[in-house]
Amino acid sequence: MTADALKTEALFAAEVPPTPAPVRPGAPSVLRRARDAVVPATRTFIARLDETSAAIASYHLGWTDTAGVPTRGDGGKAVRPALATLSAQAAGAPARTGVPGAVAVELVHNFSLVHDDVMDGDTERRHRPTVWAVWGTTSAILTGDALLALAQEVLLDSASPHRAAAARLLAEATRHLVRGQVQDVAFEQRCDVTLEECLEMVSGKTGALLSASAAIGAVLAGAPRDVVGALSTFGAQLGIAFQLVDDLLGIWGDPAVTGKPVFSDLRSRKKTLPLTYALTHGGPAGRELARWLAGSDMPGEADLRRVAELVEAAGGRDWAAAEAQRRIAAATDALAGVPMRAGPREDLIAIAHFIVAREA
Amino acid sequence: MTADALKTEALFAAEVPPTPAPVRPGAPSVLRRARDAVVPATRTFIARLDETSAAIASYHLGWTDTAGVPTRGDGGKAVRPALATLSAQAAGAPARTGVPGAVAVELVHNFSLVHDDVMDGDTERRHRPTVWAVWGTTSAILTGDALLALAQEVLLDSASPHRAAAARLLAEATRHLVRGQVQDVAFEQRCDVTLEECLEMVSGKTGALLSASAAIGAVLAGAPRDVVGALSTFGAQLGIAFQLVDDLLGIWGDPAVTGKPVFSDLRSRKKTLPLTYALTHGGPAGRELARWLAGSDMPGEADLRRVAELVEAAGGRDWAAAEAQRRIAAATDALAGVPMRAGPREDLIAIAHFIVAREA
Repeated sequence: MTADALKTEALFAAEVPPTPAPVRPGAPSVLRRARDAVVPATRTFIARLDETSAAIASYHLGWTDTAGVPTRGDGGKAVRPALATLSAQAAGAPARTGVPGAVAVELVHNFSLVHDDVMDGDTERRHRPTVWAVWGTTSAILTGDALLALAQEVLLDSASPHRAAAARLLAEATRHLVRGQVQDVAFEQRCDVTLEECLEMVSGKTGALLSASAAIGAVLAGAPRDVVGALSTFGAQLGIAFQLVDDLLGIWGDPAVTGKPVFSDLRSRKKTLPLTYALTHGGPAGRELARWLAGSDMPGEADLRRVAELVEAAGGRDWAAAEAQRRIAAATDALAGVPMRAGPREDLIAIAHFIVAREA
Repeated sequence: MTADALKTEALFAAEVPPTPAPVRPGAPSVLRRARDAVVPATRTFIARLDETSAAIASYHLGWTDTAGVPTRGDGGKAVRPALATLSAQAAGAPARTGVPGAVAVELVHNFSLVHDDVMDGDTERRHRPTVWAVWGTTSAILTGDALLALAQEVLLDSASPHRAAAARLLAEATRHLVRGQVQDVAFEQRCDVTLEECLEMVSGKTGALLSASAAIGAVLAGAPRDVVGALSTFGAQLGIAFQLVDDLLGIWGDPAVTGKPVFSDLRSRKKTLPLTYALTHGGPAGRELARWLAGSDMPGEADLRRVAELVEAAGGRDWAAAEAQRRIAAATDALAGVPMRAGPREDLIAIAHFIVAREA
């Protein structure tokens, strides 16, 4: 077992039975390759925006600082672009067929981050101030709007005869993404959210765009319906695993690594998956959690540490870690039933395992 | 001369020489027909949204009150849908070929209204509280996002073999619309905006979507490039005329008719076209205006009445009214040089004159 996997085990609670989720040495280099392929194309399209939106987007994407000076930032893990290019390759096309899809899903992802930060009032992301915190709400709304419109342009400018289908897929995914965010916001006001509702919310908020990312390259390549369907299911399951890990890192991750303030999800009483599991399955600890949640005190860090202990005592941590593994298994299974190139399929699976093992 | 045209003359200042802009009896019925064709299709698509966004959008579109009870509201003038369906007809196709375009441009228009109201802090539109004023900023951002994504879906679900080109046109128009809004916001902080800059801003903020509206039906119909180009120019010029009239109504219109608070553009020191003309061309009155604009006093209604007088004394009112007529003439000219069905062309021109003569 690698050092990384050992650390992950420690992070995701000792009670989880060991699972076959090695970090494939390939994943980081697959992600790096995708980022290298996508960033130049993304820059070309960002340059179409008005100067202000382009400058703000370049900052948000990690390319520049607030003054516009180029930085060494890499702008995130490039999971979605990697899925999109692998998706084209899995369908037998070259990676470049998937690049417009890769750029477009990354733009939609970043549109949603910029708008979410406004709505959640989050002042920090990836160790840096968020767009609205630097330039204000108006600029954040407009930059997000510009990125969303641009994503469609990227696809519709592609040479693929299937560009309309790809654009259709992305527009629908965006609608589901918004639906998930609407539910997430509504859940903050409710104390009776079921685990099923919470999983549905996550399917929209995180699953829809990962599903589209994993399918869009194949769509651009004109792949048959069953291949597109399998990749779409792979991405949807991966999306839920992704969110489960995100939620775990939000409670038990290292803020110095994640770049998010410690316990921020708990502080805002967000109905994350581990918390919702604990509330709905967790005996005395779950009931104590429910009482805390119904209150309105501004919790201090010691209170939040206690809340995290309750989530764990009620089984939320173990369940989330095990469920992430189950979703990765389901994602992997989805790829088994259809004809697909072996190399890209292995890389897709490597990324799935990488996502569960990540620390940020 | 009709009673309406006489009232318009009174509204747009006596010094403007009489211009050939009769309100064709056809325009209101053309608009009504377009609305009747587009609303059922729009409802079908709005139903795809999550329940919350659908309810908020239905309120914003004038179909329901805040409690979701159906109202008799008609949700605006339907100028953009009328242009889109006439655009298809001008190219020799049936109106229904343009309907997906009509629905899509109306959704983009309403996305921008919902977001603009957040950014401008406007609490009232069409005599009713704005979305953010009822449901808060987060819901307004999400509803706008949902409408923008849905607009693309509408086009990409159409049966037209040219749907990708239509979607491309709309995405690009959205980018220009955002650029215009970015400039509009930036101009609020500046005292040295030139008339040229202001016209460029309006070309984006209002012109881009009207241009797309006037061209999208022809694109869906597979019209030749010169026809699409002529319709696009028609819409772009019409957009500037539209904004000029909007700006005039914002200062000298009747708030009971426009549904906007009296002098709201002046109060917020917005760089509208008549104000910018007055500032940059207006001798002593223009200089007095510039001094007022550089100040930061919260003006009372008497102050704002004085400011409106200064804009008029500096020539801003006359220029804007005459410029609107010139833009309508340029729009009409654009349609003359290309082969096009005579009936739809006449209806397009009737709408152009209707826009200049409108009072709300």
